[in-house]
Amino acid sequence: MHHSQNRPAIDALQECILACEHCATACLQEEDVKMMARCIMLDRDCADICRLTMTLLARGSEHGKHLLRECMEVCEACAVECGKHHHDHCQECATACRRCVEACKSLAA
Amino acid sequence: MHHSQNRPAIDALQECILACEHCATACLQEEDVKMMARCIMLDRDCADICRLTMTLLARGSEHGKHLLRECMEVCEACAVECGKHHHDHCQECATACRRCVEACKSLAA
Amino acid sequence: MHHSQNRPAIDALQECILACEHCATACLQEEDVKMMARCIMLDRDCADICRLTMTLLARGSEHGKHLLRECMEVCEACAVECGKHHHDHCQECATACRRCVEACKSLAA
Amino acid sequence: MHHSQNRPAIDALQECILACEHCATACLQEEDVKMMARCIMLDRDCADICRLTMTLLARGSEHGKHLLRECMEVCEACAVECGKHHHDHCQECATACRRCVEACKSLAA
Repeated sequence: MHHSQNRPAIDALQECILACEHCATACLQEEDVKMMARCIMLDRDCADICRLTMTLLARGSEHGKHLLRECMEVCEACAVECGKHHHDHCQECATACRRCVEACKSLAA
Repeated sequence: MHHSQNRPAIDALQECILACEHCATACLQEEDVKMMARCIMLDRDCADICRLTMTLLARGSEHGKHLLRECMEVCEACAVECGKHHHDHCQECATACRRCVEACKSLAA
Repeated sequence: MHHSQNRPAIDALQECILACEHCATACLQEEDVKMMARCIMLDRDCADICRLTMTLLARGSEHGKHLLRECMEVCEACAVECGKHHHDHCQECATACRRCVEACKSLAA
Repeated sequence: MHHSQNRPAIDALQECILACEHCATACLQEEDVKMMARCIMLDRDCADICRLTMTLLARGSEHGKHLLRECMEVCEACAVECGKHHHDHCQECATACRRCVEACKSLAA
């Protein structure tokens, strides 16, 4: 397929999106939701920005690579915030975000 | 434009999306976030379902009308939940959701 | 993760989205674009409807399952149209759409 | 509402999205689709990038403003391409894209 050179980034973006969507929902079900507010906000933004980046890379758009820097920035911010919380969904999300940063960095290079 | 007969629904969907996105963020900043958890969850779903419905109607897709029923259902659920809270952003969101239900109902008829 | 029972459908939806996005772009680069017009239109709709369905399933939303029927319908239509064309990207897209129908059917059951 | 200072940009983004979605569909129905291939490709990208930008601005995200530059770039490219074609849908789309560039520029300032 056309997007084969983009595939590692696409796969990392997909795992990041799934982790963020799940983390936001799981945060909303935690006992102390207030403490998770910034985590939920970043999960929302990170999932949406990764989703557009993935879409543009999948379609071989010239604009896909333009989004990589912003994508890495929001993934980094989300990883830092999720990393502060001990919940499994937060730790898994932090890991997925960090892997996504690495995959985007490789593609941008 | 091609989508002129869809325009009232498109406008109502747009106002509903804006109200839901704003309400979710504002709920996350409230003192008692835990009480707003279901509101935030429905705001997320409602915004996303309305966004796709609007997109399909704007492009004149045969699949746009297929989403109207599900769109009305999530708007109705979101209006009921938001209607329980006295915050301005919740009351405004409930109103936008109810107007969206009416506009979708007219288009579906 | 929370969405583990949804994972086979999520994976099939993802492959379907990638195939549709790629197919639309590749169709636009074919010699006879006019013949591919309906294929491009359905690729667009199918990718967007699958993307929302995947998002809702990933977040464990009660509305995810509501979209499965419409999702299967657009995947089926896209598979039929893509199946008419001999291009590799069309044949691959038809296959991905049919697998997605099966995965959605299993989840809906 | 929270996003009131963003409202002019949100409205311009919305008109741009509607014009791009409509233009892509209308281009696919033209006699000479091949000539419209790049227009359709840019309409797709422009609609999707504007949609995410609008979403982030509507939710008051700190990442909304980060997308403005890329949004202006794709709107500019789409306006240039659409401006080459005499079809009403292309001319209307070019106008909407240019207005969107201006609104994003004001917000970014």
